[in-house]
Amino acid sequence: MNHRAVLRSLGIVLLAEAGCMIPSLIIALYYKEGDTSAFALTMAILVIAGLALVQFRPVKKGLYARDGLAIVSLGWIGLSLFGAMPFYFSGEIPVIVDAIFESVSGFTTTGASILTDVERLSKGLLFWRSFTHWIGGMGVLLLTLAILPLAGAGAVHILRAESPGPSPGKLVPKLAQTAKILYILYLGLTVAEVIALLIAGMPFFDALIHAFGTAGTGGFSNRNSSVGAYNSLTIDIIIGVFMLLFGISFALHYQLIRGNWRSVLKDEELRFYLLVVAASVLLITWDVGRHQIMGWGETLRHSFFQVSSIITTTGFTTHNFDDWPTLSKSILVVLMLIGASAGSTGGGIKCIRILMVLKMIRRELVRMKHPQVVQGIRIGKRLVDQQVLMGSTLFVLFYLIIMTVAIFIVSIEARDMVTSFTAVVACLSNIGPGLGLVGPTGHYADFSQFVKVVLSICMLIGRLEIMPVVLLALPSFWRRVSI
Amino acid sequence: MNHRAVLRSLGIVLLAEAGCMIPSLIIALYYKEGDTSAFALTMAILVIAGLALVQFRPVKKGLYARDGLAIVSLGWIGLSLFGAMPFYFSGEIPVIVDAIFESVSGFTTTGASILTDVERLSKGLLFWRSFTHWIGGMGVLLLTLAILPLAGAGAVHILRAESPGPSPGKLVPKLAQTAKILYILYLGLTVAEVIALLIAGMPFFDALIHAFGTAGTGGFSNRNSSVGAYNSLTIDIIIGVFMLLFGISFALHYQLIRGNWRSVLKDEELRFYLLVVAASVLLITWDVGRHQIMGWGETLRHSFFQVSSIITTTGFTTHNFDDWPTLSKSILVVLMLIGASAGSTGGGIKCIRILMVLKMIRRELVRMKHPQVVQGIRIGKRLVDQQVLMGSTLFVLFYLIIMTVAIFIVSIEARDMVTSFTAVVACLSNIGPGLGLVGPTGHYADFSQFVKVVLSICMLIGRLEIMPVVLLALPSFWRRVSI
Repeated sequence: MNHRAVLRSLGIVLLAEAGCMIPSLIIALYYKEGDTSAFALTMAILVIAGLALVQFRPVKKGLYARDGLAIVSLGWIGLSLFGAMPFYFSGEIPVIVDAIFESVSGFTTTGASILTDVERLSKGLLFWRSFTHWIGGMGVLLLTLAILPLAGAGAVHILRAESPGPSPGKLVPKLAQTAKILYILYLGLTVAEVIALLIAGMPFFDALIHAFGTAGTGGFSNRNSSVGAYNSLTIDIIIGVFMLLFGISFALHYQLIRGNWRSVLKDEELRFYLLVVAASVLLITWDVGRHQIMGWGETLRHSFFQVSSIITTTGFTTHNFDDWPTLSKSILVVLMLIGASAGSTGGGIKCIRILMVLKMIRRELVRMKHPQVVQGIRIGKRLVDQQVLMGSTLFVLFYLIIMTVAIFIVSIEARDMVTSFTAVVACLSNIGPGLGLVGPTGHYADFSQFVKVVLSICMLIGRLEIMPVVLLALPSFWRRVSI
Repeated sequence: MNHRAVLRSLGIVLLAEAGCMIPSLIIALYYKEGDTSAFALTMAILVIAGLALVQFRPVKKGLYARDGLAIVSLGWIGLSLFGAMPFYFSGEIPVIVDAIFESVSGFTTTGASILTDVERLSKGLLFWRSFTHWIGGMGVLLLTLAILPLAGAGAVHILRAESPGPSPGKLVPKLAQTAKILYILYLGLTVAEVIALLIAGMPFFDALIHAFGTAGTGGFSNRNSSVGAYNSLTIDIIIGVFMLLFGISFALHYQLIRGNWRSVLKDEELRFYLLVVAASVLLITWDVGRHQIMGWGETLRHSFFQVSSIITTTGFTTHNFDDWPTLSKSILVVLMLIGASAGSTGGGIKCIRILMVLKMIRRELVRMKHPQVVQGIRIGKRLVDQQVLMGSTLFVLFYLIIMTVAIFIVSIEARDMVTSFTAVVACLSNIGPGLGLVGPTGHYADFSQFVKVVLSICMLIGRLEIMPVVLLALPSFWRRVSI
């Protein structure tokens, strides 16, 4: 392993994090709520640690797959650990494990919170908390894509580990240019949402917070009742639509901007994603509606918002869906597992993998009837490689196995089954709220420190699509040193 | 499709069912509880229908894969529908759908019941109910293997569709001889269990009932509190051990009898199966024990019995495990999905498939570290074909997808999530009891007729390992007639 290159890359990540803290520091200075020194101290530590690590100059130029994987997972863990410091130093989250949970939840764009009263948090910390979503969602992807190449070549390995989804699909041949395009798209969409929210009457600070949460598909709000606090149909629709947009592959957004409407409309993953959204909204509207919990119009509104929020793994809420009937809740849990599109900022298993599995099952059915027929699997017009197909099915199964093990561990604390189950799913798929005690009106505060660590690891595993984190835990991964 | 051969085979199946009803008729005659005429009437109908169908003489000799699939699924459905008649004609289960549910539950060796008071049932019906387990478990497999070849050649196709597990593995080259060996093993083990239960002090009738339930891994009891009613440690151990034996591949039993201890001990699926059992017993004992629900000895006893009962998909109970803590219940639910060994009478996904998936995931981890390494997957010393590997992963995923869809449908009735979820799992994996309202002290009586039909279909899908039943539902399966 190219240890020096890995350490140097981590140094750059930490220096970048110090830079990312500047806006929060400014807000802290402006509002004077006592959290300024926490940011200043953290930034000092980040700069010192970052500069120390940057001193490692790689002897060899090359970066191998395992180096890329190590940079990604260690980078994310490092960001989260240092990012937790402002919460802890300020005294507003006095338990270290809680501060780390909140920070991991931010950078992994999960949005699960140990806070029982979000509104008591100081403005600087509220801003930082949501800004970690923005960095985490597409931000850190871009940071590592644009900055890490400076540490040496081999960035394709990082891209492979980092980009959500089985085939990242470079937008344009050169990596740095890809990163720039993604940056612009991401920033542009975020700004558009802020403006839309301002027009809808949301205060500027709140608009920023909710745009960050939407862009990163994170879901941290600065209001205890999340988006529901504004009780505005316009705001619900704006955020609902923008969540869906951030759950679409950014390769498609680029195609859209370039005017390739046709290829976007023909995209199979997009169609599948929209089909699942439409079917879920209709089913939930019918199910909640027939139980007369609210009027049909209200039902449709909250059903659309919640489906959009859950499938994109954002986690904003406008209604306590834990009170909805069983069918609706079951659909939401399945949406949690499916997740958004590959190449978006969303988490979960990803639509493209589910689509591939469904196509493979259809092929098996044909094969049972006509054993002699051999068919390839196509996504759009492209034939999918056998290895990619196998990798996708195994990913889904590995995801479910990790989920099962995590449920066992979380169950040791013997809460009800629905809480244990959905707490794990909501963390692994980077959503935030689950059902039961971790439902929209609940929180993660009451879990033991041990379970909070386990759930934090779940968030990292889900965000980095399993392999980088799991490999990190294998001793054999670190063997064969080769500085 | 060779329609004539299919119809003729079904006729033979129905005639055989009439024969299988003789013991129940004798018991009904002996106890004189008013169910005699119900059996006589059903047998008359079976003989008439069977003789009518047997008139179809196949013009062509050959049986194709689809013919085999059709015979198996239609045969099972036919057995269940006609097998429901005694319950209905006797008036003891006055609703047709309920009678069919009970009969499907019997023939699929599930053991889910709509009866709220089993002990009120007449002896003849109690015997028939449990005898359907015995026929269903290995019995119908053997019936179709030994009798159907008379209808023409091509029985290998049937074996493929019928035998539980991905690789049936003929014990000896000739099919009829295989069937005979399996018959003898199955009968021998059943008789051994009856004798053991008699020695332990169980009444003869009860011993027969519970041996049928064990052999078929079904789980119907003639007591309301199942095996718990006897409150005997010896009986718990006998049934617990025999359940485990019937959950092992019968190919291994044959090896044992032939003295090939070594190959049995080296069998990877057996090791995995026993490892899962041991780990689950220990974990549940610890989990239930620390909650001090009962003494440690009692805890170990019930934990062993319940693990054995659930992983083999039998469903006998000695304790209301719905009262156990969350970790224990979560483990039991996962055991429901895993199921027994391939080539046994048990249901579920089967240990061998889980084992293959785990090995494939390990291979993916190696590949992430060393992309150039190519490894095959071995079970024992044999290299597993790529197609079988792919088929196994897809089977697991298809199983989970069907489970999800069924949960949605069952959820329409808006019971709690745990009840809906485990009712589907318990039916799909052919177990019987689930958690919540369908837990050990509950029953399936309160579901609507619609849901009972859906759950019956789940039982058939699970028992026949998905494909035969799903293909039956596809219109394209019936196209291209070729009598």
